[in-house]
Amino acid sequence: MTIYTADWLVTQNDARDVVEGAALAVEGAFVADAGPAAEVLPRHPGAEVRPLGAAAILPGLIDAHTHVPMSALRGLGDDKPLFAWLQEDVFPREARWEPALLRTAALLSFAEMIRTGCTAFYDMYMLQENVFAAADAAGVRGVIGENVTRFFPQLGGATREALFDRIRANAAAWRGHPRLRGAVTPHAVYTTDPDLLRACRDLADELGWRFGMHMSETRKETADCLSERGARPIPYCDALGILRGDTALFHCVDVDDADVAILRERGCVPVHNPASNLKLASGAAPVPRMLDAGLPVALGTDGPASNNAQNMLRETWLAAILGKFSSGDPAAMSARRALDMATRHGAAAIGDPLVGTLAPGFRADFFALDLSFPGLQPVNDVVSNAVYAATGLENRLTVVDGRELYRDGRFLSLDYPALLEEAASLCRWARGR
Amino acid sequence: MTIYTADWLVTQNDARDVVEGAALAVEGAFVADAGPAAEVLPRHPGAEVRPLGAAAILPGLIDAHTHVPMSALRGLGDDKPLFAWLQEDVFPREARWEPALLRTAALLSFAEMIRTGCTAFYDMYMLQENVFAAADAAGVRGVIGENVTRFFPQLGGATREALFDRIRANAAAWRGHPRLRGAVTPHAVYTTDPDLLRACRDLADELGWRFGMHMSETRKETADCLSERGARPIPYCDALGILRGDTALFHCVDVDDADVAILRERGCVPVHNPASNLKLASGAAPVPRMLDAGLPVALGTDGPASNNAQNMLRETWLAAILGKFSSGDPAAMSARRALDMATRHGAAAIGDPLVGTLAPGFRADFFALDLSFPGLQPVNDVVSNAVYAATGLENRLTVVDGRELYRDGRFLSLDYPALLEEAASLCRWARGR
Repeated sequence: MTIYTADWLVTQNDARDVVEGAALAVEGAFVADAGPAAEVLPRHPGAEVRPLGAAAILPGLIDAHTHVPMSALRGLGDDKPLFAWLQEDVFPREARWEPALLRTAALLSFAEMIRTGCTAFYDMYMLQENVFAAADAAGVRGVIGENVTRFFPQLGGATREALFDRIRANAAAWRGHPRLRGAVTPHAVYTTDPDLLRACRDLADELGWRFGMHMSETRKETADCLSERGARPIPYCDALGILRGDTALFHCVDVDDADVAILRERGCVPVHNPASNLKLASGAAPVPRMLDAGLPVALGTDGPASNNAQNMLRETWLAAILGKFSSGDPAAMSARRALDMATRHGAAAIGDPLVGTLAPGFRADFFALDLSFPGLQPVNDVVSNAVYAATGLENRLTVVDGRELYRDGRFLSLDYPALLEEAASLCRWARGR
Repeated sequence: MTIYTADWLVTQNDARDVVEGAALAVEGAFVADAGPAAEVLPRHPGAEVRPLGAAAILPGLIDAHTHVPMSALRGLGDDKPLFAWLQEDVFPREARWEPALLRTAALLSFAEMIRTGCTAFYDMYMLQENVFAAADAAGVRGVIGENVTRFFPQLGGATREALFDRIRANAAAWRGHPRLRGAVTPHAVYTTDPDLLRACRDLADELGWRFGMHMSETRKETADCLSERGARPIPYCDALGILRGDTALFHCVDVDDADVAILRERGCVPVHNPASNLKLASGAAPVPRMLDAGLPVALGTDGPASNNAQNMLRETWLAAILGKFSSGDPAAMSARRALDMATRHGAAAIGDPLVGTLAPGFRADFFALDLSFPGLQPVNDVVSNAVYAATGLENRLTVVDGRELYRDGRFLSLDYPALLEEAASLCRWARGR
C-alpha cells in the first residue's frame, strides 16, 4: 500500500468533502482509504508514505470529447471560418495520414493530458487502432470512438462493410483491456443518414461498445436538419431509436427545452466544449440550464486542432465563467459545479462509475497541484484556486490505476525526449514535406 | 552585451516579423539588435551568448488593468452576485488592511506576473505607496493609480484634501523612477461626481501623472448614468473635459458607435478584461469593432479577486476566442490581433512607446516560452501556440530593462521562499484572525 499525503484532498465524493491535512491510501489500482492524515495513517502502519506537502490532490480530470491525433494540426488555420479551415488545412493533410504519425500525434496528446492532470478521455477519430496502441502504451484510461460518415471511400474504409469490419477487428483486438473501451461514433446528423445511424447503433450493441456523436453544435445544423429531416437533431435521432444510456452527445450548443427533456428521458450525457465553441463562433451551450434539469453535463476540449490545447483545467475554468456569462447570473455556475463536470460527469460520459471521485473502492486516478506557485497563493479556497487560478502545469503527479505516469518533471510511462524528437515529423507532415 | 538565442523570436515590430533561429542582443536596459542568429551573432563578436534552445522569445506582456493587492482576496466569494461579493467578502476585509499585508499581496501578484511573462502593469487601488515599494523591489514596470471615490472617509484619506495630499506625497517620493509612474484613477462615474472628476483630472495634470478610470463596465452603469447625469458614461465624461490622450478606460463593455468615435477623437485607450467580464456576467466588450475602428484596445486581468489569476497569456487566449464568439466571426480575431492587444496596445495604455516590441532601441522587456512542453508541440505556428495553447507556466525567463527577474524556476529579484511563508499571513487576514 502507498499513502500520499498532501495539504489538501478534494474528494469529489457525494458530500464533496475537501480535507485539509489529508492522506490518500492506494492499494493496487484502487483507493483503499481517504481522509485526514491523522486518521488514515494510523490505520495502515506498514504503508509506504509519499508526502506531497503544499499540494492539492484531486480526482483525475476527464476530457469527455477530444480528437487526440489532431495534435498534429495544432495551430494550422486557426483564424479562418470553419469550412475554409476544413477544406484548406484539415482535409488535405488528413488524406496523407500514416500510422506512425497518428501514433506520435496521439502520444503527444496523451503527454499533454498526463502533464496537466487529465487521466481519462473519450476520443473520436479515424484509424483508431493507432490510438488504442498509443493509449495502451501511455497508461491513460479512455473510450476510443471510430468516426463514421456516409462519404465513402473514407480513411477508415473504402465501403461501409470495410469500415465496420475494421471496427470489429479493433473490438476483437482490444476486448477486455483494463483501461480502454471502444465506441461507435457516427460523425453527426449532417454527415450520416438514418440507415447509417441505425447501423452504427446496431454495431455498438453487437460489440458492447459505447455510442456517441457530435450533436446540435450550431444553429445551422439545427436549421439544416429541420429542412432535410423534418425535425431538430435530437428528436430526429431519438425517433431513430439510437439514443440510450450509453450515449455521449458532443457540443449540445443549440438545444431547447424539448431536447433537454429527451436527453433526460434517454439518459444521455451531453458534453460541453466551451473553448472550441467560442473559437469557432458556434455559440454558448445552455450549461446551467442543462445542469438544473439534472443532466450530468460533462466537459471536453474537442482536441488540439480547435482548442488548441488539451488542458482540462483551462476548460473547467472556461466552463465556469462562460456559464455565468451566458446565463447572465454569476451564481449560476460555481467552481464546484464546473469541477463536477470535469470529474463525476466525465465518469458518466465514459461510462465508468469508479472514476471521478476519490473514496475507498474507486479507481486510483488522480493528480496533485503544487500550491507553491504564486498564482495559487494564498489558499483561501483550494477548489476555487484549482478551477479559477490554476493553469494545469502546476500539476506534479499524475496517477492512473495506482500507477504514476508523471512525477516532478518526468514522464514515467513515455519516453518523452524521444517523443519530442518525433514531434518534428508532425511539422514536416503538416508542411507537406 | 548579452545575446539570447532561441528557436523563435516574435518581434511584434511594425512588420510583425517572426524569426526562426533568432538572436536578441541586449545592451544595458535596451535591445541593441534582433534578427536571425546567423546575422546578429557575427555583428557582436565579444558578446556573452545565452542560448535558450527550443524556446520562443516574445515581448513582455502588459497587464493594462489590475488591482495587485487583491491577491489577498483570491478565491473569496467567487460565485456570488457582484454586490453580495463586495458587501460580504471584499469591503469588510479591506477595512482591515495593514501596509505590510498590502506589500505582501502586491509582491505575490508581481511574482505571478513575472512567472507568467508579464513585465508591465497598470494598477488601480488604495494606499498605493505600498504598491510603489513592492514594484520597485520586484523590478517590474508599471503605472500605479490611486483610487478616488466621493465616499469619505475612505482608506486613502479622511477627506478629499487628505487623499490628494497623499497622492502628491507619493508623486514626490517616486518622481523620476526609471520604471514606475503614477496615475490618478477615479473609480467610475457611479462613485464620483462631476466636481470630483474634474479635480482628479486637474491633479493628474498638476503631477504629470496619467489618468484612468473604470468605464462602461455594465449596461446598468449606462442606464444609471443616463438617468442621473443625462448622458451615457463616455459622453458625460467627455463633456467634463477629462478624456485625453493619457487616458486608459477599463472594461468598455457597453460602448456604442458614438462612444467609440469619442474615444478615437480623444486618443483614449480602452482596456479589455474578458475573464472578469465573463465571471461577473458583465457582458462581452465589442473588441473587434473597437479594433476595426482603429482603437488600440489593450488587455488586462482586472486582478486576482475577479479573475482569479494575473496570467496574461490566459487572458490573451480568452480575448481571441471571446472576440470570435461575440462577433459571430471566427476570422474577426486572430492570435496576432490578440497578441497586439497584450503587447503594443498595452504600451499605449501605460504610455510607454518603448515597450511591447522587440527591436533595436526598444526596452529589453521580454520573456521566453519553453517549447518542449507537450502542449506547445508541434510548432506549426509559434504565435498560435503562444496565444492558443500556452498556459503561461511554460515561461522560463523574464527580463525587464535587461535585468533577469526569473529564470528556470528561480525568482531573481524576490526572495520567493520568504514571500511564500508571508502568504500565510494573507490567509489569516482573510479569515479575520
